[in-house]
Amino acid sequence: MTTGPVLAVDVGGTKLAAAVVDQAGQVLRSSSRPTPAADGAAVWSTLVALLDDVLAGEPVAGVGIGCGGPMAWPAGVVSPLNLPGWRDFPLRARLAERFPGLPVRLHNDAIALVAAEHWRGAARGYDNALAIIVATGVGGGLVQAGQVVDGATGNAGHVGHVVVEPAGPDCGCGGRGCLEAVARGPALAAWALEQGWQPSGDATAAGLAVDARSGDQCAGAAFDRAGSALGLAIASVAATCDLEVVVVGGGLSGSWDLLAPPLERTLRRHARLPFTRTLPVVPAALGSAAFLVGAAALVLRGDAYWHGDG
Amino acid sequence: MTTGPVLAVDVGGTKLAAAVVDQAGQVLRSSSRPTPAADGAAVWSTLVALLDDVLAGEPVAGVGIGCGGPMAWPAGVVSPLNLPGWRDFPLRARLAERFPGLPVRLHNDAIALVAAEHWRGAARGYDNALAIIVATGVGGGLVQAGQVVDGATGNAGHVGHVVVEPAGPDCGCGGRGCLEAVARGPALAAWALEQGWQPSGDATAAGLAVDARSGDQCAGAAFDRAGSALGLAIASVAATCDLEVVVVGGGLSGSWDLLAPPLERTLRRHARLPFTRTLPVVPAALGSAAFLVGAAALVLRGDAYWHGDG
Repeated sequence: MTTGPVLAVDVGGTKLAAAVVDQAGQVLRSSSRPTPAADGAAVWSTLVALLDDVLAGEPVAGVGIGCGGPMAWPAGVVSPLNLPGWRDFPLRARLAERFPGLPVRLHNDAIALVAAEHWRGAARGYDNALAIIVATGVGGGLVQAGQVVDGATGNAGHVGHVVVEPAGPDCGCGGRGCLEAVARGPALAAWALEQGWQPSGDATAAGLAVDARSGDQCAGAAFDRAGSALGLAIASVAATCDLEVVVVGGGLSGSWDLLAPPLERTLRRHARLPFTRTLPVVPAALGSAAFLVGAAALVLRGDAYWHGDG
Repeated sequence: MTTGPVLAVDVGGTKLAAAVVDQAGQVLRSSSRPTPAADGAAVWSTLVALLDDVLAGEPVAGVGIGCGGPMAWPAGVVSPLNLPGWRDFPLRARLAERFPGLPVRLHNDAIALVAAEHWRGAARGYDNALAIIVATGVGGGLVQAGQVVDGATGNAGHVGHVVVEPAGPDCGCGGRGCLEAVARGPALAAWALEQGWQPSGDATAAGLAVDARSGDQCAGAAFDRAGSALGLAIASVAATCDLEVVVVGGGLSGSWDLLAPPLERTLRRHARLPFTRTLPVVPAALGSAAFLVGAAALVLRGDAYWHGDG
């Protein structure tokens, strides 16, 4: 049983974030730094300085880390796709050396998301939940029977690689027609440009949302396509996992007004089993704090969210 | 802890089967009867006579039942699709009345299949497995972290309703493009007939396999289509669940020589993540006994396969 606040860490390709989180899941203080490009040693030294800054000399009862995949789990040897400076970097072991005697637990950031939303957010009170993150990539995490599902290698929940268009676009994973290949932010923008979108501002998913809300048809069609792909993938996962709620987070979930209608339309067309047809799909509740709260949950609520060693 | 043999029951639309199964999962004796058509009372009286016959007056330590879905679980109130005489039939309660004091446990037959193959068959030794049954319908069951996954309502594992052709054929569930709509036996035969198949014998999936092996192109194309659909669905479930093995059973798995090549080709094209790209897919090992062995496992290995009451 862990008592007292813990240190939570979120390692991403653009940002390193850290917080002290109390036993109720409240962020007491937090800080972040841009992730240094390319140089792995600089990433580590920046991370160490960030943690010292957030801790401010106060003791903590443990350390929880969410990190982009892939990784060897539970060893916590990470090779984040968007952080090329770290390949097979033993992040968990390095942090364990800095915090001797404390539990140090590391999992995929999408697992941190589902843990946070299940513990303190939009999936609270449900025993069977999926959280999806739609951003530069598309990831996810599962809770079944009240427990995070790790799978054989800690990679369960990779719903970004559910196939939604068998003959669809190539995916960064090497496959084809994956949800991620269709619905990741950069893919939306690229598809809209191909269709003739003339951006009024940035040629990004955020700019696309602005133009879609102004009635641009190409921009609207791009969100229809992404929402529909999400609906298809959710229908398939719902049949497989018999869920009670799906939570959607990540940058693109800020365009929920544009994503939700096509998502709902497609999901209801395909999910017709008695146990899938009324499945609620809701936006994430915790915003950008979710990854830190979930990282903390690996330590504070290890009974539900941590099945590794230590 | 259950000691001594148990009574295992498999309730299907065409056949009622029962067996006495020992603690090692061996079938000591078994019997079956055709399922009476339409008349629910006759189904019950036939089942009771079958059980008396198999028991032959010997005591058992519990009763395990696999039954076609849908059902209310764990209540065991069943409405098997292919058994129209039973709608909201309280099968578990009725059997509990006949076997007072004993554990009586009922689950979906596809859950019985995965339990059997995990306990005694092709998924033995793996903690994360999917079993698929391809027959008149397409169903499945999941084991994760060594435990059967029930989901919110006991219906997890319905991989027959993973969407493999978003604009594909209507499915019996009311949805569209489900694996079951493409790969169930009758759908294969119907599709081949539409393509111009001229059956040399029966116009069934079994007849189709005979003709495919003789070089009939329409028949071969039908198996290619079904195998490819299975490969797509497995790729999606593998990304979601991070599996170690997939076991394929049911009548159509008897045509493994025809299904496996297109299944493998499609799976390897789409499943390219480090944790999915080498996932083995193998035929079931236990044959038709699997459903009885799995029903017994609900009682004999309740630690892994039963999370309901009683």
